[in-house]
Amino acid sequence: MIQTPKNIAIVGSGLVGSLLAIYLRKLGHQITVYDRRPDIRKVAFSGRSINLAMSDRGWNALREVGVEEVIKELGIPMDKRAIHLVGEPEYYQKYGKEKEAIWSISRGVLNRRMIDLAEEDGAIFRFEEKVWDIDLAEATIYTGESDKGKWDAYKHDIVFGCDGAFSRVRHKMQRRSRFDYSQDFIDVGYKELTIPANEDGTHKLDKYSFHIWPRGKFMFIAMPNLDGSFTCTLFLPFEGEISFENLTTKDEVKEFFNTYFPSISQIIEDVTLDFFKNPTSAMVTMKCFPWTYWNKVALVGDSAHAVVPFYGQGMNAGFEDIYELNKIIAKHGDDWETIFQTYQTERKPNADAIAELSYRNFMEMSSKTADANFILQKKIEKHFSLKHPEKWLPVYSRVTFSDRPYVEALALGDAQEEIMAHIMKMPNIEEIWNSEVVENKILDLISKSENL
Amino acid sequence: MIQTPKNIAIVGSGLVGSLLAIYLRKLGHQITVYDRRPDIRKVAFSGRSINLAMSDRGWNALREVGVEEVIKELGIPMDKRAIHLVGEPEYYQKYGKEKEAIWSISRGVLNRRMIDLAEEDGAIFRFEEKVWDIDLAEATIYTGESDKGKWDAYKHDIVFGCDGAFSRVRHKMQRRSRFDYSQDFIDVGYKELTIPANEDGTHKLDKYSFHIWPRGKFMFIAMPNLDGSFTCTLFLPFEGEISFENLTTKDEVKEFFNTYFPSISQIIEDVTLDFFKNPTSAMVTMKCFPWTYWNKVALVGDSAHAVVPFYGQGMNAGFEDIYELNKIIAKHGDDWETIFQTYQTERKPNADAIAELSYRNFMEMSSKTADANFILQKKIEKHFSLKHPEKWLPVYSRVTFSDRPYVEALALGDAQEEIMAHIMKMPNIEEIWNSEVVENKILDLISKSENL
Repeated sequence: MIQTPKNIAIVGSGLVGSLLAIYLRKLGHQITVYDRRPDIRKVAFSGRSINLAMSDRGWNALREVGVEEVIKELGIPMDKRAIHLVGEPEYYQKYGKEKEAIWSISRGVLNRRMIDLAEEDGAIFRFEEKVWDIDLAEATIYTGESDKGKWDAYKHDIVFGCDGAFSRVRHKMQRRSRFDYSQDFIDVGYKELTIPANEDGTHKLDKYSFHIWPRGKFMFIAMPNLDGSFTCTLFLPFEGEISFENLTTKDEVKEFFNTYFPSISQIIEDVTLDFFKNPTSAMVTMKCFPWTYWNKVALVGDSAHAVVPFYGQGMNAGFEDIYELNKIIAKHGDDWETIFQTYQTERKPNADAIAELSYRNFMEMSSKTADANFILQKKIEKHFSLKHPEKWLPVYSRVTFSDRPYVEALALGDAQEEIMAHIMKMPNIEEIWNSEVVENKILDLISKSENL
Repeated sequence: MIQTPKNIAIVGSGLVGSLLAIYLRKLGHQITVYDRRPDIRKVAFSGRSINLAMSDRGWNALREVGVEEVIKELGIPMDKRAIHLVGEPEYYQKYGKEKEAIWSISRGVLNRRMIDLAEEDGAIFRFEEKVWDIDLAEATIYTGESDKGKWDAYKHDIVFGCDGAFSRVRHKMQRRSRFDYSQDFIDVGYKELTIPANEDGTHKLDKYSFHIWPRGKFMFIAMPNLDGSFTCTLFLPFEGEISFENLTTKDEVKEFFNTYFPSISQIIEDVTLDFFKNPTSAMVTMKCFPWTYWNKVALVGDSAHAVVPFYGQGMNAGFEDIYELNKIIAKHGDDWETIFQTYQTERKPNADAIAELSYRNFMEMSSKTADANFILQKKIEKHFSLKHPEKWLPVYSRVTFSDRPYVEALALGDAQEEIMAHIMKMPNIEEIWNSEVVENKILDLISKSENL
């Protein structure tokens, strides 16, 4: 289908905004990207980001516009988890089959490169341009120094809101009637910390692993950077016995790490430096609908669907939005109303599905890991999956190493849960968990299930 | 407990704002009520309100501050439903026991009187004072002609947000981290219409009834006014075969009423006048948390919990907020932080419960009334309840004619649903529904239930 070049505004120069700029430039549109923040290429990173794990969906979207290889140079493939328990040597879990890996990439490094690429393709970036209002019907955005000062008006044909979980563009849509919206915070916060490189620039932990120190209601993770360092995240409840609220002095923080993460205390010289320098951040699930306004405005990425980070799919889902949107554009040419309708109708159920999967992973991590039944169930699933890999694809693999819709992964997970609910009710399951009786029962239930 | 007089702002001069002003004046506080709209006593009503049904919770709250009797003069008790089916004479369903009734009151008439009463008690009302911003920590509100114009600052000790489902006060709280929020619109809209009085000032339908014309996915209701008229509401899907979207011409509207509501066509001279004059409005369930900010700001009524109107409890729930808040104030004196904490902790689950009950009533109305199983179930419940009134209190009665917490009413409803799920699975239930076997089975299940 023919595309008439449009004068398009993208609000937000983050990962999704930059990639969308690249896609739309390739279609011949005139692109202006507005961002209220300074050019990320000229300032230090914020110290509040979790390293990204690029998986298949993200790579697909990058490959489509020919930038997969240049971005791969910024990342490190992690083909396994490294699990660190207290007082035990670390052990490894392969993610999947040969060559299946997720890629650790620094958000800042990636974002800088993506903006470079979009600029090379001809997108115009206007940094420190604060958007305060949007006339949805006119696709006009208003920017200025302050909310109350003088505003400049920029008229466009189409506006894309790629301005994240607290989107200004969505904010404007939200004030209209019949706009469904929800934001739900979890009671766990996170803080970025850094494990520095060795003096010779090498990594202090295995470079090709996603490192996890699970501790029930809290955990610490580390992901490798090219410079030999690891970007780490401490996930910890805001309130309660062991919580951010109760870590207010240097001594308390040192004691906390010495007790629960002694191996980290050994490789970070003074863990309290980052701890008090970096902010404690909150995590939210945000859902809304509609995502579009007539043929004028559309939300893409976190502005349409923010998820908690426990599946590592936030950016991947946003990139997949663009990949799918591009396919829809190819079908409907200049009919932007149909493009936007189709886009939101097709993507919304998948966004809801990855939100649900991400939240479930958080619940598993924070409340089920100490539950004996849950541990047994996971053991049975793994045992069965090893014997019948073609009959029991882990949901994680379906989400991470596949481009099948998220809704299918959720349905797969539900079907497996249903089967396991039956299995866990079998008499003496604690003793017979690895028996043929259980194996055959699972096989039988699988044969009766519609989603497996 | 002693109360030190505070300088308190109430944002919103609606029903909840005015009643709260009366309560707080009685405790000796200095009260200023701000409202962006003109004085409702000096302008015509909006033509978009559903008449109110004051029930026990509302009366309790009015009685506590001695205004029950003056308000009762504005209302008409409705002790029964009048059901109007096409081609059948209307029939009546008593609401409850002797003297149990809900009271029809015009929102505008009630609001005017409540403002008078609050003013008599010494509350100051500042109308057409548009609140644009609130400094939560300082309890300072900013008002002005326009969002971008010059603002005046008013410093208070405490600010109450009683400014409804689209509250400005909440809007400010919502921008803080860890504020949970959701708004969910239903796909049914409503429109106000009026059945005028007879020429001699009498009512055209039975005056002491809540009139309902149920038609499956849509319905028409009428509630009496003192002047002989009825304030009516048409509930109808926004889109679909029979919908507001498809009623765009006078002929279509006339045809619609002639077909589905012939009796109304007869008593409203020209139904199309109101239909095209009055707006079509949307309905939303709004939930949020927290409701308070330290000892400075609290949300009361719809600003904290807006519900769909199908249980007639929106205003009653808001009035009960105030009644309960007053009890908490009596306990904790000047400790406003504890007062606000206790208030939100105690009220939030009840607000969620009435939201759920209201939504379920909508679902029953819009999708289950044509379901044969559902009709049979309701018939069995009614049959049993008449035989054993002490063992099967309808949830409606628990909500409407009681001051027990909404959470208990929801639990009662859930327990009854569970029992009926068993009953509906009994073989040949269609034939044995009024048999002793079923009766005994229900009695047996009740004896085993914890919530009955």
